[in-house]
Amino acid sequence: MISWKIEENGYDPRKTANLGNKFLAGNGYMGIRGTLEEYTKEQFPAINLAGIYDQANGWREPLNAPNGLYTRLLVEGEEYSLLKKEWLSHKMSLNYRHGLFSRETVFQTKKGSISLQTERFASMEEKHLIALMVTLTPSFDGEAEIITGIDGDVWDINGPHYDSIDTGSLNECLYAFGTTHENQDHVAVVEAIGLLKKTDQMVSNGDRKVMRRISIPLKAGGQYKFYKYIAVYTSKDGENYQSEAEKLALKAKEAGYEKLLSGHKNNWEEKWKVSEVSIEGDDEAMEALNYSLYHLHSIAPRHSESLSIAARGLSGQTYKGAVFWDTEMFMLDFFLFTEPQIAKTLLKYRIDTLPGAQKKAESYGLDGAFYPWESQEGGYDACSDYNVTDVFTGRPMRTYFKDKQIHISAAVVYGIMRYTLFTGKRDLLSEGGAEVILECAKFYYSLLIRKIKDERYELWDVIGPDEYHERVNNNAYTNRMAKYTFDAAVEILKEEKKEANKDSLQKKELLERLQDAAEHLYIPAPDEKTGIIEQFDGYEQLEEVSIAEVKERLLHEKEYWGGAYGVASHTKIIKQADVVTMINLFSEEYDAETRYKNWIYYEPRTEHGSSLSACMYSMLACKCGMADKAYPFFIKSAGADLGDGGKQWAGLIYIGGTHPAASGGAYMTAVEGFAGLRIEDGKLKVSSRLSSAWIRLSFKVYYLGDLYQITVTKDEAQVKKIR
Amino acid sequence: MISWKIEENGYDPRKTANLGNKFLAGNGYMGIRGTLEEYTKEQFPAINLAGIYDQANGWREPLNAPNGLYTRLLVEGEEYSLLKKEWLSHKMSLNYRHGLFSRETVFQTKKGSISLQTERFASMEEKHLIALMVTLTPSFDGEAEIITGIDGDVWDINGPHYDSIDTGSLNECLYAFGTTHENQDHVAVVEAIGLLKKTDQMVSNGDRKVMRRISIPLKAGGQYKFYKYIAVYTSKDGENYQSEAEKLALKAKEAGYEKLLSGHKNNWEEKWKVSEVSIEGDDEAMEALNYSLYHLHSIAPRHSESLSIAARGLSGQTYKGAVFWDTEMFMLDFFLFTEPQIAKTLLKYRIDTLPGAQKKAESYGLDGAFYPWESQEGGYDACSDYNVTDVFTGRPMRTYFKDKQIHISAAVVYGIMRYTLFTGKRDLLSEGGAEVILECAKFYYSLLIRKIKDERYELWDVIGPDEYHERVNNNAYTNRMAKYTFDAAVEILKEEKKEANKDSLQKKELLERLQDAAEHLYIPAPDEKTGIIEQFDGYEQLEEVSIAEVKERLLHEKEYWGGAYGVASHTKIIKQADVVTMINLFSEEYDAETRYKNWIYYEPRTEHGSSLSACMYSMLACKCGMADKAYPFFIKSAGADLGDGGKQWAGLIYIGGTHPAASGGAYMTAVEGFAGLRIEDGKLKVSSRLSSAWIRLSFKVYYLGDLYQITVTKDEAQVKKIR
Repeated sequence: MISWKIEENGYDPRKTANLGNKFLAGNGYMGIRGTLEEYTKEQFPAINLAGIYDQANGWREPLNAPNGLYTRLLVEGEEYSLLKKEWLSHKMSLNYRHGLFSRETVFQTKKGSISLQTERFASMEEKHLIALMVTLTPSFDGEAEIITGIDGDVWDINGPHYDSIDTGSLNECLYAFGTTHENQDHVAVVEAIGLLKKTDQMVSNGDRKVMRRISIPLKAGGQYKFYKYIAVYTSKDGENYQSEAEKLALKAKEAGYEKLLSGHKNNWEEKWKVSEVSIEGDDEAMEALNYSLYHLHSIAPRHSESLSIAARGLSGQTYKGAVFWDTEMFMLDFFLFTEPQIAKTLLKYRIDTLPGAQKKAESYGLDGAFYPWESQEGGYDACSDYNVTDVFTGRPMRTYFKDKQIHISAAVVYGIMRYTLFTGKRDLLSEGGAEVILECAKFYYSLLIRKIKDERYELWDVIGPDEYHERVNNNAYTNRMAKYTFDAAVEILKEEKKEANKDSLQKKELLERLQDAAEHLYIPAPDEKTGIIEQFDGYEQLEEVSIAEVKERLLHEKEYWGGAYGVASHTKIIKQADVVTMINLFSEEYDAETRYKNWIYYEPRTEHGSSLSACMYSMLACKCGMADKAYPFFIKSAGADLGDGGKQWAGLIYIGGTHPAASGGAYMTAVEGFAGLRIEDGKLKVSSRLSSAWIRLSFKVYYLGDLYQITVTKDEAQVKKIR
Repeated sequence: MISWKIEENGYDPRKTANLGNKFLAGNGYMGIRGTLEEYTKEQFPAINLAGIYDQANGWREPLNAPNGLYTRLLVEGEEYSLLKKEWLSHKMSLNYRHGLFSRETVFQTKKGSISLQTERFASMEEKHLIALMVTLTPSFDGEAEIITGIDGDVWDINGPHYDSIDTGSLNECLYAFGTTHENQDHVAVVEAIGLLKKTDQMVSNGDRKVMRRISIPLKAGGQYKFYKYIAVYTSKDGENYQSEAEKLALKAKEAGYEKLLSGHKNNWEEKWKVSEVSIEGDDEAMEALNYSLYHLHSIAPRHSESLSIAARGLSGQTYKGAVFWDTEMFMLDFFLFTEPQIAKTLLKYRIDTLPGAQKKAESYGLDGAFYPWESQEGGYDACSDYNVTDVFTGRPMRTYFKDKQIHISAAVVYGIMRYTLFTGKRDLLSEGGAEVILECAKFYYSLLIRKIKDERYELWDVIGPDEYHERVNNNAYTNRMAKYTFDAAVEILKEEKKEANKDSLQKKELLERLQDAAEHLYIPAPDEKTGIIEQFDGYEQLEEVSIAEVKERLLHEKEYWGGAYGVASHTKIIKQADVVTMINLFSEEYDAETRYKNWIYYEPRTEHGSSLSACMYSMLACKCGMADKAYPFFIKSAGADLGDGGKQWAGLIYIGGTHPAASGGAYMTAVEGFAGLRIEDGKLKVSSRLSSAWIRLSFKVYYLGDLYQITVTKDEAQVKKIR
């Protein structure tokens, strides 16, 4: 049995930023950082919104809504807040089965102690709603005052994003309407309050805040509760976003906290019915994995039919709230297997942003679709030409992530094809997916070169998954993914031909060209002697050196390892799984020895400087029959958000946040690694490759519209259709 | 009338390094820096040897011979030397018509003043010989002592290169035999002394030095002379290098200084008969230009049939004494027009180092011949992978001069073809030149790529003449020079076919391939609207910024402008003529407007950070009919070694030296620019494009074995065959 709960006891201000991520509660529309009610922007509270962005100071990032949770406690005119450090005990917890955040803090007042408890959730049933319950339990007679309302002076990494915030009160509600800088988008937050009895209120308004001041007479041993119902809408949700927000806040108040909570919980339970993964014999692993799945659920876009997930989920503005290859290559499978509609929503976002990808390709003089490395609304590439600051000169360094990480387009194709394969449905293809695939194939085709003296086609001047080596030729992963794209496009074109029974000359020519491309594109093969696949042309000539030695060469703890002159750049040390990712994706093309040799070769040369790395090593280790080597990488991936949250700062820029790709990677490792789930001859197959301590691994997956129960023990691996 | 003399009055130790270059005297076998007899290695004296190298401390550079000129003066037991600062007057001068260096210093002694005069030359008649005359003129009666001999403790940039130096005296001679570290090469210096009368001598020997101590009784108003005859040989000059050196020193002593000097002067006069360039109306220009030609004569390899010239001539070890494209593209024409045998010697060096170039190509997985960027003996590429030190981190920076400046091979082809064109002789072709051309064509062929969707062939990932922009695609200069190479190879193959009347299948295939390459290779053309030829793909998208602004961005005066993150790298600011060099070389292919527009466009964007830049701008300005715009660039090029010598230090590394490419460039500018010399329909043609102040420009050139007198005035341009 696992607890489905994480807790933090005591209060340490140094942990505030990380706990904000770790205790995140979200519903896909918004993410509420695991921060406390009394926090102001210095402590990074945020109600982070999905898919709405603003540019300020040259930086485009998602919006944080005005903070309707803001609440301060005063007793006898004195404020009691964790920030004031007069607390006796403090505990916060997250029930990650139901996305329920709570805190309990006991303060020492001059008259006696008082407990402040809160509980809150971003409703999974009603995506625009947040509900908060506050309970005061005093040990004395006296008077409390509560200052609660909406704080529009929100935390931003590169803000402020609201040119103005109109605040006010009417019809029992508080209002904050923000207008953004770049596009004059609007965000509306409306708060209604539910009190046990009618109480005197003062409303103060101004300076981007609107607050109620409520007096509560206290009796020793009594319990005093009130509720806040906070509705969040943006102008992207429709013309009547303001009145909708008001209606929702009042409706919620009418329904009451308990009813809302019950609907919310039921909704979560429905999800777990399909998605829970049980690991008998290893509670730690099961906790970490299901906690990862909780995060994926919390950020899944269920309120839209075309939206994707940012690399740091809804935990804030890090990485500009942009969508990376993380979604298709690391998160997609979880949704595809447990809630395929979301997989479709994620991919529809790519289909709908095709014009942006086409524009990007054109800007580089290329054909087809070059998807953004950091995708925002409309397929705008938010990636800067200068992503890193030189710590020695303070100058921005020209980086080529945007220009050269061409494997991003293939990730989109991979996602669409995988959706089609696992759902057995061609809906996505006919709704634009086929066009995307053709456009991506045209993109790679326009990049293909060949040496005049050679027959083979090559791809030069790229960056593969390992970003420490920029502008390399024939990155194995990239070339293989481009071939995958050509193959997919050829399949699409053949299918179209069959279906339509027509064959335009243009399509025929394209088919011939892409078939030729797929046939001639050079895919680096295992070396005949060593069995090693070279990551890119010339990798083998780079300096052979240990990670420890490379670290010793650092002159500054924050200097960049990559770029033209980084400590790793001219060595074999790589940032993350690259060849190993390729072999993992196309494992059926490589024999057991090749898989094993490459794992053994590349692992000690990998810094694992990205949270995308561990799961690839873990999955491939499973596929090499090394479940026990896989295990620590699995735990690392599943626990990416459970520990201290990794690197939180790059110089003065906050880069912390949740790691949904690692969460998705952990899921894939369990399902496709330890349980060996795959399709063979159109059938779902599993294998038993359990880690030593595991007794039984069981979960459910959708395949071709049917739900299957998978059960794997040491001796047996079962697939059973249950619906 | 010009003086044929430069002078320096007074003594300023800060100028020592530069004066060593400016007052250089050489004969192609060796260069004697314009340093004084009392100097030890701290003042950078050197007898720099051509074509013999040693590696120490990972750095390979040419040898400096043990210094046989070393001489100190003592009066009444006290030393008188410029380094001791007790001088009354000091003057040094160089007669650059005859390569005659002299100095006169007057010292104040306790008894009165004494003048020390010396005169010396590296014999143009006898390349292994240096002769020195010393004259003392005292104003008092007393006694002088002279300590003179061979100082084997030589100056090195990265030495010491002699593992051992054996010194000794025998048969009236002093000896120093050095043995090098890397290859156990030997250098022998033998000194014989000529005194007016037999005098007592003490010889002291040891510590890499062998010295005579000679007492000279002085009478007021008397003149006391002695002579040193210094023979220099290396084991590369033959087995008996030691005895040859001894024989020569004694023979010279026998002949005496005046006879040797006379032969030396005659030899120089013979050279000037053909090579002197007369500029009536502008003595300054005529001085500077003929001073430049003096330097070229001084370093021309006349003692060998296969040797080239280092980028800093024989002025020291800067740039490792290596041969760059400077020789073929900037120095060759002077020799070709005035002493074609030397042009052949220079190119024979490239023919003989073909195996090195083939080995280099092979090491990069390429075919044919990739000539070294910094060529030493045997075509060894002395260029490091790390040519620049990051001033901010102290780390070596990976540079790509060696790997990517592929235009070097075309420079060799250009030289061979130009020799063939101007001499009308096919000797060089049949002595290996044709093979070199074919190998260079194969080299470029193996680099050709094409985008699969395009027909044209391209060259990617190169560095053009402008080194501030590394790893660019389709550098106009490089592509055009590669096409030149294909065209030359096609011509060779067709000629071979005709001559031999045989046509191997292999050759036929090669011919077809190279014809195809020449036809399809993309040569960036003038933009239809602007007329500008883009320096490389994407140059036009770079930041438009002034040189002043780029300089302001420097955080450290010595930081590198190029590389991945240099202040110029992502701007349009270029180091040196690039497109302008191409248009200048192929000016007949571009109309007047294109020449003009590109000159006007690129000049303000050029830092002229290389001494190779000014002459190209100057020549093209002449070809645009802008002689007055050409003039300052001409003066800059001709005066490259006349002023303060430009940059002398890169951090702690001495990089000063003479600039023979600028000298050659100045010559080309006069002859091909202001006088417009060219071949049209097999005939020598000239034009009048004189600078305002010039009345008459006249010179002689060889063409097809005949000598022509060229005379250009404002109104007329004459070609007259005189022999």
